[in-house]
Amino acid sequence: MFLVRSFILLLAAVVATCHVEPIVLVHGGADTVHPLRVEKRKEGVKNAAMGGYKILKKGGSVVDAVEEAVKIMEEDVKFNAGYGSALNSEGDIEMDACIMVGSNLTSGGVTVVKNVAHPVSLARLVMEKSPHFLLAGEGAKKFAKQHNVPFVPLASLMAEHSKQDFDEYQKNPRKDDLEMGGCGGVGAIAVDAHGRVAAASSTGGRLAKLPGRSSAAAIVGAGLYADDEVGAAVVTGTGESIARYVLAHEIINLMTRGFDAGVATRNAVKGITTRFRKPTGAITVSKNGQVGISFTTDKMAWAYQVRDDVHYGLDDYDHFSEKIKL
Amino acid sequence: MFLVRSFILLLAAVVATCHVEPIVLVHGGADTVHPLRVEKRKEGVKNAAMGGYKILKKGGSVVDAVEEAVKIMEEDVKFNAGYGSALNSEGDIEMDACIMVGSNLTSGGVTVVKNVAHPVSLARLVMEKSPHFLLAGEGAKKFAKQHNVPFVPLASLMAEHSKQDFDEYQKNPRKDDLEMGGCGGVGAIAVDAHGRVAAASSTGGRLAKLPGRSSAAAIVGAGLYADDEVGAAVVTGTGESIARYVLAHEIINLMTRGFDAGVATRNAVKGITTRFRKPTGAITVSKNGQVGISFTTDKMAWAYQVRDDVHYGLDDYDHFSEKIKL
Repeated sequence: MFLVRSFILLLAAVVATCHVEPIVLVHGGADTVHPLRVEKRKEGVKNAAMGGYKILKKGGSVVDAVEEAVKIMEEDVKFNAGYGSALNSEGDIEMDACIMVGSNLTSGGVTVVKNVAHPVSLARLVMEKSPHFLLAGEGAKKFAKQHNVPFVPLASLMAEHSKQDFDEYQKNPRKDDLEMGGCGGVGAIAVDAHGRVAAASSTGGRLAKLPGRSSAAAIVGAGLYADDEVGAAVVTGTGESIARYVLAHEIINLMTRGFDAGVATRNAVKGITTRFRKPTGAITVSKNGQVGISFTTDKMAWAYQVRDDVHYGLDDYDHFSEKIKL
Repeated sequence: MFLVRSFILLLAAVVATCHVEPIVLVHGGADTVHPLRVEKRKEGVKNAAMGGYKILKKGGSVVDAVEEAVKIMEEDVKFNAGYGSALNSEGDIEMDACIMVGSNLTSGGVTVVKNVAHPVSLARLVMEKSPHFLLAGEGAKKFAKQHNVPFVPLASLMAEHSKQDFDEYQKNPRKDDLEMGGCGGVGAIAVDAHGRVAAASSTGGRLAKLPGRSSAAAIVGAGLYADDEVGAAVVTGTGESIARYVLAHEIINLMTRGFDAGVATRNAVKGITTRFRKPTGAITVSKNGQVGISFTTDKMAWAYQVRDDVHYGLDDYDHFSEKIKL
């Protein structure tokens, strides 16, 4: 009797240890301009977090969940990813995306890809159907063709506001084009009940960037990272400083050293902002379901779903939550 | 009198603290096959280390030194970089390179570039003449043209042994092509008397890789890193695992946490080899001039010059040194 009771208690303890409250957390970019447009993103990030969470709830994996959340934002014209991407210096759209799985540290990325509606899904194909971590440009296109990825015309990715931004830029190219909008991109991370994590990112990149310019969103370690032993992070801001600071990996490293998700995220975002003087944002989940959200940009749209609640924010110190009507 | 003496002592202490013994350290790749070819690389790495050191001695910067060392290896047919690059699955040559400066963490990279003799110099142009950290494919080509970089025919990059490897691969494509040769690439790091560091890398990438495949050698944080506050590292092996482990950044992180260059390098190389089961190599210098060299591949050609001595090795536990005849 005593043995049975001990066994049950042990089992309960193990279950309690293993059970993590599943979360899908997304960001919708961290621009410094166009506050009105950014404001509209609140609804968009809520939809994306809930869309990703729905997949988890249906039994999908964390990878399925983050891909779905990013796809929702790629389809939403309000975000600088997929439809609504920023234009490069030639008025063209070249996109970047990446996806990473925390269980085996595998990942796939694409950089400078054109005419695909969902760069994040192409990145997932690279992860699952190629032996490589990153495919660029023409090679990525060839790979997409071989895997029957549908191509879409440039016009179907081009938003009215992206054209306006580009026209404005041409009339008045600012010296520091980093200050222009369209740096943000989108990202999603998820943790499931077993503490498994994944991360995904997608972006149209910087407005008026040179043709061929890669974004941090394509680069594992820079724009995103996921490791079941620690957690997952995805970041947003100026790709040039993010890549050189290796921001997502830095956050995971701080967590490895014992900082919780919130402190690690804040310290890394503060660190990169101090060193590069470029405002930046990041979202993080630990393998235990801790959440970290931090940004030094004016605004960053973020949202996460946990249980039947969606939490979201845009300005510093924002933290709203709503019961989801089922 | 006492004050003057104190001042002199203080000055001597400051000079002693600041003075670091300059070093240029290079690797020539870490292949698991073709031990005979790798053997020949010993002379090549010695030449490269001495060539880079000569630049430092003439008053050049650490960036000039690492660029020169890598250029020497790009010209040397024995290395998988520039002339002598491995062929991709279509028999073409697509190359990657990156360069990073520790003083301000700036960097430049190119991925999937064709028909240039010195990808590392194009990477330096990206660093100095563009606002970006990485240019890919056609965009990188356009940028090169705008900056009058000379183009060379494919034939001038193609070595006899690279063609033979490709023919062999076509006859007998191994299931795990990661085991094939031509994974190595080249890299160089340097520290000057003031403790300033830089890193550079260049590669033709994996034999029979898909067109468009990026190498870790193009990616800051993955293939190389340089930070004057810590040191510099450049790594070699399978780009896919290096990028996903963010190896160079991991080494620098371990050094930040207090490990010396040797231990940090060994621990990180051991860590990636355990996690991905892919043999890997890395070389490191700290801002104080400590050296770290570690590899889990069969062989890795490495060499460094310090004062008038060149040190080098190829197999585990090798450490030869020679006085340089001036």
